Amino acid sequence: MTAPDYGTAFAAWRGAAGQDWQRYTRHAFVEGLRDGTLPQASYLHYLRQDYVFLIHFARAWALAAAKAETIDEMAAASATVHALVHVEMPLHVQTCASHGIDRTALEATTEAPGNLAYTRYVLEAGYSGDFLDLMAALAPCVLGYGEIGLSLRGNDGPYADWCAVYGGEEYQSLCRDVGALVDGAVERRLGPDWQTLPRATTLQSRFDTATLLEVGFWDIALSPIST
Amino acid sequence: MTAPDYGTAFAAWRGAAGQDWQRYTRHAFVEGLRDGTLPQASYLHYLRQDYVFLIHFARAWALAAAKAETIDEMAAASATVHALVHVEMPLHVQTCASHGIDRTALEATTEAPGNLAYTRYVLEAGYSGDFLDLMAALAPCVLGYGEIGLSLRGNDGPYADWCAVYGGEEYQSLCRDVGALVDGAVERRLGPDWQTLPRATTLQSRFDTATLLEVGFWDIALSPIST
Amino acid sequence: MTAPDYGTAFAAWRGAAGQDWQRYTRHAFVEGLRDGTLPQASYLHYLRQDYVFLIHFARAWALAAAKAETIDEMAAASATVHALVHVEMPLHVQTCASHGIDRTALEATTEAPGNLAYTRYVLEAGYSGDFLDLMAALAPCVLGYGEIGLSLRGNDGPYADWCAVYGGEEYQSLCRDVGALVDGAVERRLGPDWQTLPRATTLQSRFDTATLLEVGFWDIALSPIST
Amino acid sequence: MTAPDYGTAFAAWRGAAGQDWQRYTRHAFVEGLRDGTLPQASYLHYLRQDYVFLIHFARAWALAAAKAETIDEMAAASATVHALVHVEMPLHVQTCASHGIDRTALEATTEAPGNLAYTRYVLEAGYSGDFLDLMAALAPCVLGYGEIGLSLRGNDGPYADWCAVYGGEEYQSLCRDVGALVDGAVERRLGPDWQTLPRATTLQSRFDTATLLEVGFWDIALSPIST
Repeated sequence: MTAPDYGTAFAAWRGAAGQDWQRYTRHAFVEGLRDGTLPQASYLHYLRQDYVFLIHFARAWALAAAKAETIDEMAAASATVHALVHVEMPLHVQTCASHGIDRTALEATTEAPGNLAYTRYVLEAGYSGDFLDLMAALAPCVLGYGEIGLSLRGNDGPYADWCAVYGGEEYQSLCRDVGALVDGAVERRLGPDWQTLPRATTLQSRFDTATLLEVGFWDIALSPIST
Repeated sequence: MTAPDYGTAFAAWRGAAGQDWQRYTRHAFVEGLRDGTLPQASYLHYLRQDYVFLIHFARAWALAAAKAETIDEMAAASATVHALVHVEMPLHVQTCASHGIDRTALEATTEAPGNLAYTRYVLEAGYSGDFLDLMAALAPCVLGYGEIGLSLRGNDGPYADWCAVYGGEEYQSLCRDVGALVDGAVERRLGPDWQTLPRATTLQSRFDTATLLEVGFWDIALSPIST
Repeated sequence: MTAPDYGTAFAAWRGAAGQDWQRYTRHAFVEGLRDGTLPQASYLHYLRQDYVFLIHFARAWALAAAKAETIDEMAAASATVHALVHVEMPLHVQTCASHGIDRTALEATTEAPGNLAYTRYVLEAGYSGDFLDLMAALAPCVLGYGEIGLSLRGNDGPYADWCAVYGGEEYQSLCRDVGALVDGAVERRLGPDWQTLPRATTLQSRFDTATLLEVGFWDIALSPIST
Repeated sequence: MTAPDYGTAFAAWRGAAGQDWQRYTRHAFVEGLRDGTLPQASYLHYLRQDYVFLIHFARAWALAAAKAETIDEMAAASATVHALVHVEMPLHVQTCASHGIDRTALEATTEAPGNLAYTRYVLEAGYSGDFLDLMAALAPCVLGYGEIGLSLRGNDGPYADWCAVYGGEEYQSLCRDVGALVDGAVERRLGPDWQTLPRATTLQSRFDTATLLEVGFWDIALSPIST
């Protein structure tokens, strides 16, 4: 699998994350989506947890808009919040409804511990740190889904829809935009040689932790379901 | 001037703010807009400061989206950010351009101390407090402009455009929505008798301080111009 | 076991937490401390994770000082930070050293996922909410340790020191102070009937989640050790 | 007046602040302290505003403790909070009492707009930015008072006490510690050549704005008194 080109920072972070990045992007859940062997109950379990996740993920992007230093950064972050709240979350509501989970049931989902851990980690990184901490902690989800989606593009079978959304041009274009936002934000603050600064280690650590929390999120989806 | 009906909380806060509310909504700047005697230089000075203000105001609404407790609150706050960043701020750029202030000059505006005081007060209230602190600190600007706009509706003369925007149905409708958002948010957390709680005093204090900072903002616009 | 009297809010929260409170305060780890059957390796594993925990816990109390609304609240919160950073953490360093874990090893401890989840949950509750959210999320740790300590007081055996610290008068007195701080903070904002307000549900939810995260923390200590 | 040596970052920031630094450290208020011509009413007005200022200043240092990345940074920040809350603020209470302003009157002081602007600017810089933003925004007050105190050391006359406190060894030592904290924090994140990075411009801007807000604070003290 060739890594997609979502910019310089992502390439560096992804490379340094090493095996953990493979554990995330080649997780058994992903392979189950690919070959269609993922049990539907696991998929629905995932969708429900992902809905709760998206609420907090949108909050984190809103925090990024509050912490932006330029109007362009603010516009990019606020457009992402808008897309999450007014497009992606309603889509989840609809998909779940088509599988017999109505909105009330969806919103009553009990947040799994690993889900809580992930979203609070990202939000706290943003509150305690700055815009760059948020970008590094948000990147594995946004861009990892892009990379996974690309590798599943054209897939048919029971999860063809999921593959089409994340492998599709619209989402891929969003990934390139986010990658460019990240590159611009890092260089604007730390200059072109930022990878040599101690700050780069902190950012890598944000990316690495969020990557491991993504692995944990797939694990939830495959774990025996108690919701 | 009959006060417009933007909901229960606003009515209570406005009433308790007393004379300071009149100092804001009947400020000499407002009267100058009404009778057309406001010097154009003052108006342009105001527009430039207001542009800087809107950047931080949008950040505060983004923070509100991050601090929302329901999806509806998040959707309302994020829609406001989106409108500010993608509609209202470009409108300011355009209006200023039509008066010979290009985008570069506009973005190079030196923030007046009273402008800085106001926006940082609102943001800090939001960071240190919760969603309600933000609502109380944001209300005087959003809803005060609605009230002023309503009282200037149909005005012609040099500032007819300004009067048409804030007195117009679109902005009035936004004010009713924000008023409803505030009422819902307060009751959802503090119940129907919230005005009897000590918390009501803190919220009133947020509203009062922001009202005084609005007075200070009009003062800036009328002060000798040094930008 | 009679519940200690650390104030009204704690009593209410503890009561409503129900069985989960027992799962935390009567966890197998606690019983192992009591009867001395806790393997030393588990105890050391716990001490190391607890050191990492205390760092973030102190940060959360510092955030409480930043979000305090009165000088007394600020003084109480800052005294707690001071005690954690200048007394409790050095004590951990010393205890670990006496078991052959030097400071470098201690500070190199890899944060367990359940540890990260807990501390980031508390910090994020504080950043996104207000002082009361922090108090509700901090209470299970501070006051639960008091309750456990009290039930283990006078214990001898290998964990006599731990039991003496948390069951001792100094820590019990701190618990009563924190309980009073919480009671004062809640009443000061929400009035004497705060338990009838919707806000009480959110605070209970903060307390409940932190209680479950405490259960998870004991679980870490008993889990096979990979650090 | 030779600038005191409180470290590299301070020297750079102070140098780049240029004339504004002189406007602050050689303000008419300072000269009035020096030659004893400062009216006592102005001094008392200053003390009262400064008390309100210290509350928020302590909150900002508490936020720094919450945002620290090392235990040493946390210890330094929390020691400062502790000193402010448990030493410096009680000293203000005592000094004011000796001039006939009792604690109730002191705590009822109406915050001047320029006071509010300053503290909210610092806190918001800290919340929206990171530890370094806080350090740059806090430096002009802490270290500027050190520099002023040093230049007034040994002064007698009506303000001998003030001069003795800020020119005294204890405060000078604190300034060297804070200077070292700042230098360590900047290098730890940005490396030895941090002054060449774009980030240095943002930090300078934080320092410059806080310096101007200090000028505004002295202006308050000399303005006609309406409290």
